[in-house]
Amino acid sequence: MTRFESDYTQGAHPRILQRLLETNLDQTSGYGTDEYCDCARALIRRECRSEQADVHFLVGGTQTNTTVIAALLRPHQGVLSADTGHIAGHETGAIESTGHKVLTLPHQDGKITAQQVRQACLDHWTDDARQHTVQPGMVYISQSTENGTVYSLAELEALSQVCREYGLPLFVDGARLGYALAAEGSDVTLADLARLTDVFYIGGTKLGALMGEAVVISNEALKRDFRYLIKQRGGLLAKGRLLGIQFETLFEDGLYFDISRSAVTLAVKLRDALGGMGFGFLHASPTNQQFPILPDALLNGLRKQHTFSTWAKVDAGHTAVRFCTSWGTTEAEIDGLIGDVRALAFPEGLEVRQLENA
Amino acid sequence: MTRFESDYTQGAHPRILQRLLETNLDQTSGYGTDEYCDCARALIRRECRSEQADVHFLVGGTQTNTTVIAALLRPHQGVLSADTGHIAGHETGAIESTGHKVLTLPHQDGKITAQQVRQACLDHWTDDARQHTVQPGMVYISQSTENGTVYSLAELEALSQVCREYGLPLFVDGARLGYALAAEGSDVTLADLARLTDVFYIGGTKLGALMGEAVVISNEALKRDFRYLIKQRGGLLAKGRLLGIQFETLFEDGLYFDISRSAVTLAVKLRDALGGMGFGFLHASPTNQQFPILPDALLNGLRKQHTFSTWAKVDAGHTAVRFCTSWGTTEAEIDGLIGDVRALAFPEGLEVRQLENA
Amino acid sequence: MTRFESDYTQGAHPRILQRLLETNLDQTSGYGTDEYCDCARALIRRECRSEQADVHFLVGGTQTNTTVIAALLRPHQGVLSADTGHIAGHETGAIESTGHKVLTLPHQDGKITAQQVRQACLDHWTDDARQHTVQPGMVYISQSTENGTVYSLAELEALSQVCREYGLPLFVDGARLGYALAAEGSDVTLADLARLTDVFYIGGTKLGALMGEAVVISNEALKRDFRYLIKQRGGLLAKGRLLGIQFETLFEDGLYFDISRSAVTLAVKLRDALGGMGFGFLHASPTNQQFPILPDALLNGLRKQHTFSTWAKVDAGHTAVRFCTSWGTTEAEIDGLIGDVRALAFPEGLEVRQLENA
Amino acid sequence: MTRFESDYTQGAHPRILQRLLETNLDQTSGYGTDEYCDCARALIRRECRSEQADVHFLVGGTQTNTTVIAALLRPHQGVLSADTGHIAGHETGAIESTGHKVLTLPHQDGKITAQQVRQACLDHWTDDARQHTVQPGMVYISQSTENGTVYSLAELEALSQVCREYGLPLFVDGARLGYALAAEGSDVTLADLARLTDVFYIGGTKLGALMGEAVVISNEALKRDFRYLIKQRGGLLAKGRLLGIQFETLFEDGLYFDISRSAVTLAVKLRDALGGMGFGFLHASPTNQQFPILPDALLNGLRKQHTFSTWAKVDAGHTAVRFCTSWGTTEAEIDGLIGDVRALAFPEGLEVRQLENA
Repeated sequence: MTRFESDYTQGAHPRILQRLLETNLDQTSGYGTDEYCDCARALIRRECRSEQADVHFLVGGTQTNTTVIAALLRPHQGVLSADTGHIAGHETGAIESTGHKVLTLPHQDGKITAQQVRQACLDHWTDDARQHTVQPGMVYISQSTENGTVYSLAELEALSQVCREYGLPLFVDGARLGYALAAEGSDVTLADLARLTDVFYIGGTKLGALMGEAVVISNEALKRDFRYLIKQRGGLLAKGRLLGIQFETLFEDGLYFDISRSAVTLAVKLRDALGGMGFGFLHASPTNQQFPILPDALLNGLRKQHTFSTWAKVDAGHTAVRFCTSWGTTEAEIDGLIGDVRALAFPEGLEVRQLENA
Repeated sequence: MTRFESDYTQGAHPRILQRLLETNLDQTSGYGTDEYCDCARALIRRECRSEQADVHFLVGGTQTNTTVIAALLRPHQGVLSADTGHIAGHETGAIESTGHKVLTLPHQDGKITAQQVRQACLDHWTDDARQHTVQPGMVYISQSTENGTVYSLAELEALSQVCREYGLPLFVDGARLGYALAAEGSDVTLADLARLTDVFYIGGTKLGALMGEAVVISNEALKRDFRYLIKQRGGLLAKGRLLGIQFETLFEDGLYFDISRSAVTLAVKLRDALGGMGFGFLHASPTNQQFPILPDALLNGLRKQHTFSTWAKVDAGHTAVRFCTSWGTTEAEIDGLIGDVRALAFPEGLEVRQLENA
Repeated sequence: MTRFESDYTQGAHPRILQRLLETNLDQTSGYGTDEYCDCARALIRRECRSEQADVHFLVGGTQTNTTVIAALLRPHQGVLSADTGHIAGHETGAIESTGHKVLTLPHQDGKITAQQVRQACLDHWTDDARQHTVQPGMVYISQSTENGTVYSLAELEALSQVCREYGLPLFVDGARLGYALAAEGSDVTLADLARLTDVFYIGGTKLGALMGEAVVISNEALKRDFRYLIKQRGGLLAKGRLLGIQFETLFEDGLYFDISRSAVTLAVKLRDALGGMGFGFLHASPTNQQFPILPDALLNGLRKQHTFSTWAKVDAGHTAVRFCTSWGTTEAEIDGLIGDVRALAFPEGLEVRQLENA
Repeated sequence: MTRFESDYTQGAHPRILQRLLETNLDQTSGYGTDEYCDCARALIRRECRSEQADVHFLVGGTQTNTTVIAALLRPHQGVLSADTGHIAGHETGAIESTGHKVLTLPHQDGKITAQQVRQACLDHWTDDARQHTVQPGMVYISQSTENGTVYSLAELEALSQVCREYGLPLFVDGARLGYALAAEGSDVTLADLARLTDVFYIGGTKLGALMGEAVVISNEALKRDFRYLIKQRGGLLAKGRLLGIQFETLFEDGLYFDISRSAVTLAVKLRDALGGMGFGFLHASPTNQQFPILPDALLNGLRKQHTFSTWAKVDAGHTAVRFCTSWGTTEAEIDGLIGDVRALAFPEGLEVRQLENA
C-alpha cells in the first residue's frame, strides 16, 4: 500500500532526524530561547532578505492561523478569506473561537483578487449601517491554496497594495509554501513575501519536518508582545529547540527548496501522465497536490494498492480525488501509481472513453 | 555548564528517538488515527485498569489545560484551582482566553483540600446573589504540584468524593505525573487517577518525550466530540503518529516509570545532601523539583558551572532556587552539583552557619 | 416629516407609559425578582399554554440572540441560520464574539426549510473529516423574517421534527413576533411556538414597548442557570420591573395583539395600494414591513415628506425600499403616504409605465 | 415596608418620566443618532469641560464595563482592579467571557493606589518569564467604590500619572458617580475625570434614570469604532432616544447633582444618627451607601418594616448591613428608619451596650 492521501504520511526528512539525534544531549534553555532557534531565525531572515523581520516557531497550522489572526484583529473586526480558505472550513471554527468572523469571498481557483478585497472594503465603508456589520480587519490567503494553485507576483503585489491602501494587514498561510515557491512558473520568492505581507509562515509539517511552522513578521504592531500570544494559544513548546533544529536543517543549505522541488516534479509527472491518458482535473494545480477526475470503477481498483483522498463527486460515475507528493515520495512510487492507473484505465489497450462507456 | 533549571533542557530519551528513526518511513494516516496511536492508547488503558477510558494525545500542557477546561465548562462557570496552579499564573491567561475565570483557593504546600472545595461550593450555593458571581464548574489540581508536592491517595479520594457530591468534574494536570507516581511515599497509581478523576493527563514533555501529553478521559460527557475540541484549539497534530510512537515507547515496558524513578532518586539525593549541609527548603518536595534556600554569595559562585531557576527572595542574603532532574540527569552531574555547593559553602571546612554570619 | 424607516421611531404605547407612571414610586426588589415580572411571566405562560416554560426578560434583540445561542452551544458547535438571518449579517459578529460560527444556509424568502437542515446534518455526520469542521449545534430562525415573511405552522412543525431527530435545539428570534402572529393567513400561535421550539422570544422593542424581549424557554437544559447567563451578557436590568411592567401591560388584555393587528392592517393597505398602482415588491410580505420597488425619481420626491430605508438597488432607475408600520402608525399617515406616492407616480393622471419611460 | 436594600428600588425621577411622556410621539431615527442624544452629549461635554470627548449611551453597568474593557485590551492583557471591584466579583465573569483576566490588587477601603499599580507593572516588566503571565493592560477603579468610599483628586492624579507612565488606560466605573461627586469633602469634578482618565462613565440607573450609563471617552484609540463594539455587545438600544432624553433631563439644569446631593445628605444623616447611638461601621462611607454593624436581634426587628442588604457576618451576634439612599428616598423615610433603630436599640432607654450584653 502506498499512501498519497496527504503530505504528512511519513516522519521527517532523514537529515532532520539525524540532526535531532546529534543534538539530543545538548542542554539548552527552553521556549525557543536557545541557540538553535536563534540560528534558524537568522537563516530565515537571510532568505527573506529582511534584517528587521521577527521569526517565531509554532507547532501547527491551525494554531498559527489562530494566534496570528487573533493578534491582529480588534473585537469587531473579521478576516477576509476565500470561501475555500482553510480557516473558513477546516479548522473547526478556530477563528470564531477567538471571537472573530471569517468574511468569505467567492474564490477563483482557490484564490481571491485585489479587486474583490477593494470591493468588500468599499461596500463596508459606504454602508450607513456599517457598525451593525463586521468590519474587514485583515486579509488571509494561502500560498499554495487549498486547490493547489499559486498567486503570481503580480497578484500578490496588487493584493498588498490594496491592503495597505485600506489599512488591512495581509497574512499568508504558507503551510505548503515550499511547494508554491517551487511551482511551475512561480515568480515569487521568500523575499517577496517578506516585502509584500505583514506576516506569513513557512510550513514545516507538510515539508519534511516532524512538525513546525516558522512565522515571519514584518508588521511592527504585530511584533510587539507576540510571544505572549504564542504562549496563550498553547504554541510555546517547552523544548522549543526541536523547532529551531528542524528549521536550521531545512534552511542551512537549501534542503527546504530541494524537498519542495522534488515533490513538485513528481506531482507534475503524475499530472502529465494522467492528462495524457485523457483524464481531466478538478483544479489546474502546478504544485504537489493533484486533483484528477477518475472513473469510480478505476478508483475502486486503485484503492487496493494506494490511498488517496476523495475530494468531490463530479457526476454519477466520476469522482475527483487528491494525490499528494512530499519529501518522502519516490519516483518509483509515482511510476507505480501511473502504471496502475494506466492498467486499470486501459486493461486491454482500450481507449479510456470506451472504458467509461462500459 | 550543567543545566538544572528545568526538566526540559534536553531532547528525548534515546529509546524514543531510536523508535522515531525506525518508524520514520512507515506511511500512516494522519491526526492520530494511526496504529501507533492505537497501540499507545491500549497500553495506557491497560496501565489505568480502564477499558472504557478514552485516550487522546496533545502537544503541550497549556494547550491541554485549555482544551479540557473549555470543554467541560458552561459559559458562566469557572474552574477551582490552587492560587499557585499553573493555569492561575503561568499560562498568559489561556483559560480566560476561552471565556472562563480561574477561581483561586489559597494553597497549602501547592495543594487544595476537599474541605476547601466543599466550602467554596457552600459559599456559592447559599449566596442569594449567586447568579452575579461565577459558578464553580470543575476542580483543577496538579500532580505533582508547582511546589513539587504530591496528593496522597486519601487526599485524592476526598477530593473526588466532594467533586461527585457537587457535580464538579475533577481534572488532574499531570505534566509531571510520573515524578508524582515515583515520589517517596507515594501511594497513588494511574488506576487510582482513572478511577477518581473525570480526566487527567500523563505528561510526556517533562518526562522524556520530545513533546506530548496523553489525556485520559473517564467522564462520558467529555468523551463526546473531544476530537473536535482538540482540533479547534490547535492540538490535532497532522503527524499524530509522533505522539503515538513516543507514548508507545514510554509505556510498552515501563520506561515512563524508570525515567521517573531515576529522576526522583537523584533529586532526593540532592535534597538530602543540601539538607545535611544545614540548608533549608522553600517547599518540602519528594519529587524531581527541589527548592533549597541558599546564600546569595554561594549562588553567585554556583552560576559559573550550573544553571537553575531563581524562585523567591527569602531575605536580604538568601534566595530560594529550583533544581530539576529529568530523564537525562546523571548521578555524576548531581554529585558534581553537590560537591560544588559544599565547596562554596565550606571553603575551608567552616560550618555553614559561620559562613552565613560572615 | 413622517418616519417609516423602522418600527422603533417613537416611544412606547401610551398605556405602557401610563403604567410606568402609576407604578413609578412603588418600591421593589431588583433584577427581575419583583411582582410585576412575576405577573408578566404568568400572563405569558398562559398565552403559551405552558405551565412549565421559564420566562426571562432581556433588554434587546442582539443581547438576547447572543445570550441564548452561547448558552446552548458547546465550543465546537455552530448555529444554522438563513444567510439573511439577523445574526448572520447585522449584529457586528456578536455570535462569533462568543466563540461560535454562524453556519449559513441559502434562504428562500428569508426562510430555511426542514430539508435544508436535514441535509446540513447529513453532510456533516457523513463527512469522515467532520471533526475538522464546525458541528451544527442548533437552528436559528426569525418569525417574521428579515424579509417580512412568516413560517407556516406546517413549516415550523417540519423544522421542529428534524431538529428533534438530530438533537438540535430550535430557537426562534421573535423580535417582530407579534406582526407574524397577526400576518394575513398566519396559522401559528404562541402556544405552537412554545410547543415546537426549545426557546423563542416575544419582541417588545419593535411592538410598542420602550425596550425589552421576553424569552420563553421550554428546553430543560437551557432553563438551568439561565439567569447567570443573562447577567454575564449584561442583560440583567437592575430595575428589572421596567420590563415586567411593560410585558404585563402588553399581555393583560391583548394589547400586544391589538398593536400587531393594527400595524399589519396598515402595512397591507399600503402594499395593496402600491400594488394597485402597478409597482412590484422585492419581497412578498404579509407583515408590517413592506419592500416596494419604486422609481428613483419618485423616491427623491417622497423623501421631502417621508423617511424610509433603502434596501437594494434593483436596476439603473429603480430601488427597493422598506416602509415599516408600528404601534404609532395612524391610518392618516398611511393614507398620506399612499397619496404622496400616487401624486408623484401620476402627476397628471399618467400611467405609471409612462412615467417610468419618461 | 420601606426599601433601603439598593438604589434601584423605584422607577425614574418624575421629571424624567414626564419628559418621556412629552416626547413619546416624536419620531426619530434609531440607535442613538437622534437629536435628544446629540443634545445630551453636548450637555455632558460641557460639564466635562471637554470639546473633544466622545459620549455614548449604554443600557447598564456590566454591559458598559465589558464593552469598554474588551475594547481596550489586546488578547494577552488583563485589567488591574481592586479585589473588591465590581468586575472582579459581581458580574458573573463578564470580563473573562471576553477573554481577559481581572488582575486583582488588595484593596484599601475599596480603593487601589498609584503605588500598587506601579509595583504591579514593575513586577511584571522585570519578570524574565513575563510572557507566561498576563500583561497589565489597563486600570479599572470605581468612583464611588463598592465600599462607598471615594478617590480624592490627589489620588486620582497619582493614578493617572502612573497609568500614563506605563501606557495603561485608566477607566473609572461611575455607576454611582453622582454620589461620589456629592460626597462629603469630595474635591473631584466631571472635568477632572475627563482630564485624568481615558474613559469613564456617568451612571444613570442608580441615579434617577430608568436605566442608562453615559460613557465619556478621551482616549483617541478607544474612540475609533466604539459604536461597532457597543452593537456587538448588545448595548445599542434601537430606541436610543430613551437614553438621550433621560441624560438631557439629568444634565440640562443640574438635576443629576441635585439627586446626588439629596441622597448623600440623607445617607449622612442616617450614618451620624447610628454612630451617635454607638454603632460602628464596616466601611467609613461619605456617600449614599452606609454599612453599619448592628446586633442580629435588632436586625430581626427592623426587617418587619424595612429591607436592607446583608453584607458581612462580623461576629456571633452582629452583622454588617447596607442601607442605600437614592433619588426617591425621603427625609421622612430616613427619620422613620432612625427612629425604628433607636426604638429597637433602646427599648426602655437602656444603653446600647447594655442591650448587646443582654
